Amino acid sequence: MSSIFTKIIKGEIPCYKIAENDRFIAFLDISPLKKGHCLIVPKQEIDYIFDIDNDVLKEMIVFSKRIAIALKKAIPCSRIGVAVLGLEVPHAHIHLVPIVNESDLRFSNTRLVLSSAEFVEIQKNIVSHL
Amino acid sequence: MSSIFTKIIKGEIPCYKIAENDRFIAFLDISPLKKGHCLIVPKQEIDYIFDIDNDVLKEMIVFSKRIAIALKKAIPCSRIGVAVLGLEVPHAHIHLVPIVNESDLRFSNTRLVLSSAEFVEIQKNIVSHL
Repeated sequence: MSSIFTKIIKGEIPCYKIAENDRFIAFLDISPLKKGHCLIVPKQEIDYIFDIDNDVLKEMIVFSKRIAIALKKAIPCSRIGVAVLGLEVPHAHIHLVPIVNESDLRFSNTRLVLSSAEFVEIQKNIVSHL
Repeated sequence: MSSIFTKIIKGEIPCYKIAENDRFIAFLDISPLKKGHCLIVPKQEIDYIFDIDNDVLKEMIVFSKRIAIALKKAIPCSRIGVAVLGLEVPHAHIHLVPIVNESDLRFSNTRLVLSSAEFVEIQKNIVSHL
């Protein structure tokens, strides 16, 4: 069965897309730790980040950097925190989270509940800085 | 003033080194979240991970992958978690942490206190899997 991320990539499940190329997609986490929390996902469905081929992994970090730079311009923060856990969805993904304090990257924190209008506003803001 | 990591790179402060090349060093976090918690540090002293040049960043993730593969063989865990926070030491670094649960990558957790003998044993174990 396809992962939820593959369904998003195929357009079977909607997302607030930030950027996409032939290998990766970036979209807003629907249950964000902070406003602007993005996921960077390879289109190839690989469970574990370090099973990804070197060439793809290299492009994935550069793609993530591009998103992180736009994200930092769009959302007031100290910097963009990075995390890869991978214990829930079996499809590798990098979390990019605008942080001010270390505790902002704590995955047990209560997630933000945002309206669709708020997600669209954040999406447009980030995309405008790409 | 040099960062604490530059002092480690220069050998002015000792570390439990895992691997090194001309651009990066990997060593055990002296205050680990879990046994085997490693830091991957570029030798060039750059504060923010996303200020690192693309070419160096690409090599940094591949170097991290090499360490992560050895780490996963050495330390019983589900996978190697990845985090970049960067709010304490102004010298970019990637945390690699053997995790079983999401909470294992929580930076507010009480850090392990290990003896030098324990660090050396962990170091040898990881290095033997490189």
